[in-house]
Amino acid sequence: MNLYNKITEPTLLLNKQICLLNIRRMKQKADKNNVQFRPHFKTHQSVEIGEWFRQEGVLSISVSSLKMARYFAEAGWDDITLAFPVNIREASQINELAGKIKLNLLFIHEETVEFLDHYLENQIGAFIKIDAGYHRSGISATDKKQVSKLYRSLRNSGHIQFKGLLAHTGQNYHAASKTEIVSNYYNTLEQLHNLADTCCSNQKQLIVSVGDTPSCSLVDDLSGVDEIRPGNFVFYDLMQYELGSCTPDQIAVIMVCPVVSVQKDRNEVVIWGGAVHFSKEYIHHKNKAPSYGQVVELTKEGWQWTGNNEFLASVSQEHGIVKLLPEKIVGIKPGDLLGIAPVHSCLTANLMKGYLTLDGEKIDHLNGKLKR
Amino acid sequence: MNLYNKITEPTLLLNKQICLLNIRRMKQKADKNNVQFRPHFKTHQSVEIGEWFRQEGVLSISVSSLKMARYFAEAGWDDITLAFPVNIREASQINELAGKIKLNLLFIHEETVEFLDHYLENQIGAFIKIDAGYHRSGISATDKKQVSKLYRSLRNSGHIQFKGLLAHTGQNYHAASKTEIVSNYYNTLEQLHNLADTCCSNQKQLIVSVGDTPSCSLVDDLSGVDEIRPGNFVFYDLMQYELGSCTPDQIAVIMVCPVVSVQKDRNEVVIWGGAVHFSKEYIHHKNKAPSYGQVVELTKEGWQWTGNNEFLASVSQEHGIVKLLPEKIVGIKPGDLLGIAPVHSCLTANLMKGYLTLDGEKIDHLNGKLKR
Repeated sequence: MNLYNKITEPTLLLNKQICLLNIRRMKQKADKNNVQFRPHFKTHQSVEIGEWFRQEGVLSISVSSLKMARYFAEAGWDDITLAFPVNIREASQINELAGKIKLNLLFIHEETVEFLDHYLENQIGAFIKIDAGYHRSGISATDKKQVSKLYRSLRNSGHIQFKGLLAHTGQNYHAASKTEIVSNYYNTLEQLHNLADTCCSNQKQLIVSVGDTPSCSLVDDLSGVDEIRPGNFVFYDLMQYELGSCTPDQIAVIMVCPVVSVQKDRNEVVIWGGAVHFSKEYIHHKNKAPSYGQVVELTKEGWQWTGNNEFLASVSQEHGIVKLLPEKIVGIKPGDLLGIAPVHSCLTANLMKGYLTLDGEKIDHLNGKLKR
Repeated sequence: MNLYNKITEPTLLLNKQICLLNIRRMKQKADKNNVQFRPHFKTHQSVEIGEWFRQEGVLSISVSSLKMARYFAEAGWDDITLAFPVNIREASQINELAGKIKLNLLFIHEETVEFLDHYLENQIGAFIKIDAGYHRSGISATDKKQVSKLYRSLRNSGHIQFKGLLAHTGQNYHAASKTEIVSNYYNTLEQLHNLADTCCSNQKQLIVSVGDTPSCSLVDDLSGVDEIRPGNFVFYDLMQYELGSCTPDQIAVIMVCPVVSVQKDRNEVVIWGGAVHFSKEYIHHKNKAPSYGQVVELTKEGWQWTGNNEFLASVSQEHGIVKLLPEKIVGIKPGDLLGIAPVHSCLTANLMKGYLTLDGEKIDHLNGKLKR
């Protein structure tokens, strides 16, 4: 109760216990399958939460920007994959970081290999980014000619060491069922193995790297994979719950927002909590209205999932409109707090720039560390 | 050219000349109509850009959070309306700020008036927030009984001085035509005057405060209004252009993003520029696909609107997929830069945390000022 009394503004509440369990469960799954665990830190972007991974024996990580790589390198992480197509405009910063840690980058184009090989003084590792059906970035898994060419280009490079093939099965975020997610996973894996066998057959130790949160959560047998890179599982969120990747009690973060207006005739409250807190990511709710978050019940110990048809129905810059059940709206007044599970915890954390644990401890986020 | 050579990451480019013209045009319109100009600073959230307003003679502003109010108060702004329903959880900070500057707050509920009147030691000004058809927050303009009650409650308060009636015609953002925007504006105004006459007839100087960017841009005759509070007009954006509030050459900010992958067979490039840079705000493009931004042509002097069917078609956390014309994709390679006009400049600025002018000058944003 003391915790909530101190909250005056939109706050990202973190249940550390749930978060630790999420980390441990995924690490154990990787260990059981004898798979390298390289969690994606873009979800939490926190040095402190990174330490919780380290305590579980995690030593290698993924990030989504060079700034994030530098942030974690400063915190002692020395084996980092920047899981994003290489941006040659940052060649100087890449070279600098590669002089300090083991840095892996993602390649799609030969000209990028040539440019960096010529530019770099320090060694980097390289993965070929394969598009296994998501159609965002990467060489199409069907384009063996291009994969072979890029592989040869990397093998001929002096400063770039080829490591393996990497894919992100992002189409899982549009999957209609758990079965489809599992099927997408095996399909990705098959394509990567096929490419490894046909395009990179003379490579001794080729790493096959996969791992979005939905497939890493739903697939138990990870044989045939060398490395997984899930990120969102550290917190999960409403989207993952809708996909079937997690149960409600595995969601480790919620937003806590002050009520500033009550509109009883519409069963709505206005909260201080909008697009600059939640992001504008939404899912389509079962009644077809878009939902920007699911209302949970705040308790003395944290929060409780209700599954009620109560949700964040719209967000503008600072305002959010929350639909509540008629029986719930009765007792609500301005100054009360509402708990809301976010749709996409990565984007919400990125906007909130920090966390508050149930014990009242403040936890860092890269975006909260900007200097004047 | 030098400017672009230095850009290594997603950058929010600001054309100061356009921005100054946008400020001057709106200030002149307010002056011509003898209307108080109280621009909303939530769009730019910048002390430096605030100074550009001051140079035009602006002395009173609107903000959307107490943090923002404090930020601008520290920069010398001493007449601030926090244009958001009052959050009584911040009563202590409200009292503190009210001891330093002229602070106006928005009221909807009597219990909030009672609570604050009891709590405050310093004087604040108060507006009654009226819902004139947007249905986000405020007392419905049709509920004269409630407006009268709140008005009496404010008049009876010792620390809260009633100032007037305030509305935000947010439904303009869903308007189908310029005519509808103008009609919404006059409708709001009529409702506010009606309430002023019937509910607050014994108030000597009642301020009628309106002013979203679409209506303030499209309505020339502002008679009958005491105060306007537009914000977005300082930059405008793609959404305002689609609404008809601005011309393309009045858009003062674009994103500049590095190309990291080219997919010629799909006429797509992947840029470093995603939801954490643009936000996930989108408009429905004329060909029915959602657009998260409109491609513009980068020139030596800045950028140029083309109106081509080239747009940011999807965003994930750090990635953006841009659809280009076949003739434009031919010459593009990784490491090039793309210019993209954002859909919603307020949210993009909030995420980017700073600006770069065409002269290479860095401009502050509240979010870039966080301290360790």
